Amino acid sequence: MAETPKIRFGFIGCAGIARRVSRAVALAPNAVLHAVGSRSIDKARAFAAANGFPAAAKVYGSYEAVLDDPEVDAVYLPLPTSLHVRWAVLAASKKKHVLLEKPVALNVAEFDEIIAACESNGVQLMDGTMWMHHPRTSKMKEFLSDVNRFGQLRSIHSNFTFRASADFLENDIRVKPDLDALGALGDAGWYCLRAILWAANYELPKTVIASRNPVRNQVGVILACGATLYWEDGKAATFYCSFLSNTSTDITALGTKGTLHVHDFVLPYEEKEASFYAATESGVDEAVTKWVPQPSKHIIETDIPQEALMVNELARLVADIKFKKAKPEKKWPTISRKTQLVVDAVKASIDMGFEPVQIQE
Amino acid sequence: MAETPKIRFGFIGCAGIARRVSRAVALAPNAVLHAVGSRSIDKARAFAAANGFPAAAKVYGSYEAVLDDPEVDAVYLPLPTSLHVRWAVLAASKKKHVLLEKPVALNVAEFDEIIAACESNGVQLMDGTMWMHHPRTSKMKEFLSDVNRFGQLRSIHSNFTFRASADFLENDIRVKPDLDALGALGDAGWYCLRAILWAANYELPKTVIASRNPVRNQVGVILACGATLYWEDGKAATFYCSFLSNTSTDITALGTKGTLHVHDFVLPYEEKEASFYAATESGVDEAVTKWVPQPSKHIIETDIPQEALMVNELARLVADIKFKKAKPEKKWPTISRKTQLVVDAVKASIDMGFEPVQIQE
Repeated sequence: MAETPKIRFGFIGCAGIARRVSRAVALAPNAVLHAVGSRSIDKARAFAAANGFPAAAKVYGSYEAVLDDPEVDAVYLPLPTSLHVRWAVLAASKKKHVLLEKPVALNVAEFDEIIAACESNGVQLMDGTMWMHHPRTSKMKEFLSDVNRFGQLRSIHSNFTFRASADFLENDIRVKPDLDALGALGDAGWYCLRAILWAANYELPKTVIASRNPVRNQVGVILACGATLYWEDGKAATFYCSFLSNTSTDITALGTKGTLHVHDFVLPYEEKEASFYAATESGVDEAVTKWVPQPSKHIIETDIPQEALMVNELARLVADIKFKKAKPEKKWPTISRKTQLVVDAVKASIDMGFEPVQIQE
Repeated sequence: MAETPKIRFGFIGCAGIARRVSRAVALAPNAVLHAVGSRSIDKARAFAAANGFPAAAKVYGSYEAVLDDPEVDAVYLPLPTSLHVRWAVLAASKKKHVLLEKPVALNVAEFDEIIAACESNGVQLMDGTMWMHHPRTSKMKEFLSDVNRFGQLRSIHSNFTFRASADFLENDIRVKPDLDALGALGDAGWYCLRAILWAANYELPKTVIASRNPVRNQVGVILACGATLYWEDGKAATFYCSFLSNTSTDITALGTKGTLHVHDFVLPYEEKEASFYAATESGVDEAVTKWVPQPSKHIIETDIPQEALMVNELARLVADIKFKKAKPEKKWPTISRKTQLVVDAVKASIDMGFEPVQIQE
């Protein structure tokens, strides 16, 4: 049986994050770097040379040229969020499968246009939330899903912060209202909200109330914010995201029988292995001198990094569509959309003066 | 120079927690178990026998008798919260120094009566928040206070939960409206709020808004709740406490330059050593494959447990008053009062339908 041909990726733009994803495509066993396009062909050429594109890879001086290359199977879109709807819809119309950076859109109405275009053209859509693809994530999910080890989820807290440089706070697309208007909420907050939804089996919260201390820059873009999310069954979650605090990427999930802690969920401390802490029926000894049992550390190894596993998963789905007439996997756009819905609700609550916002699917 | 005589402790009641504190008095080098009183002399006798009271210790069939024993220097009050004001005021009036279990009172007005009685009688007042006295706590504080390692505090999250047994949820004083009306908020939430105030250098938040998902039992006592706290400088804190989730006792503190994590702040995993995680200027390597630097684990050893260090500190202050004409240390009642103020504000916000409550000192 012949080996399935590799899925050929075209890059639409040369943003900083594209360097990491080009390495991921190179590392994924079923994908290949095929093309890169930039509004400047010199920039595209330099990017291809610096990021391991093979000599045969195509270098284009426009985004359109990548979409018009008939050999491109899938495109990676690291453009500013305000450009997502235009280029993702166009890519889908050219029958290109789409790996879309997060936040997937400025709001869910825009994302619904992207979903519709992908569905009508039969192409796979997946967002660029890398940690979803680390084997640790499924191991943590096994723990959270185990009624004997974790019980029912009651409370979740997640934070993702990093301290942006003065240059970032002045010039990065993520602080520009015309480029990434969702600021820290769309960038860092996206991960926290995805983590919370992931822990809650993607059941949407009913109500979201933003915290009263968002920080905005002079042109109104959010640099730090948080919220509390409420579900009908009584469980709740809090999150905090910021461009103004030292790096932190935490999930704390509290269940009736167990507890989960992870401190590097967005990017593991090390590439080849990652850990989390799980505890079940924690108690103390008779004299209250120590915990019995104490939380256990679980270490999960991976040969290739999470971003390469992400590319691998997308390429697998694309290959199934291309060679086996499979349908696109709806799970990925569905969880992207739910994440965007909660991002939108947090934004709406902030804009409405921290009033409760109801979420409707 | 003669050794300073040991401070003689009398126990008012034989609650479960009193077992642990009697062990602490026995372990503290400057304190001695002198008397125990219960409404039942048989219970007092059994308690003394089971908890290492010396043969010469006094056993009384009433609380009053302990207060009337002229040899008792300090009393330990583990009574239900609703009885604190009566017995703490009476103890102070008998010139006994007071180690008072938390929550210190049902509300700050009651606690102010206790403070006034202690001040007018020149006796030391301290609450029973043991973790304040662990050497780890001052090491963590050093880190949080270091502008080069931690910077300015921006966000804090703390949770303290444990899963109470069916018997506890039916019979414990902490679920009875006439005994410990503050329920999980006064018991577990006390620790979270103290941790948050401690991290914030005891600067009171300006506004408190309770989370909308408190759980109450059939007679209205809180079994789980949370809140968000806001300071004028923009920093904020969230907390969650519960009798209904697996044991967790966490502090996550995010600063502009550093991050602190501790998972066993209320009771260390082990008695002889405790740890926390600190990170400063966390970043990633050039290729975004790992964190550089990664958080560091700090281990702090202690010869005697935190509760014995608490007794030791109280006995030291009492000895200074008794033998060196020192004044009582105001720090301890001051931080007890601030903690109670925030407990009261969370309770008020819950009772007012989750409205913002302003805190005034």
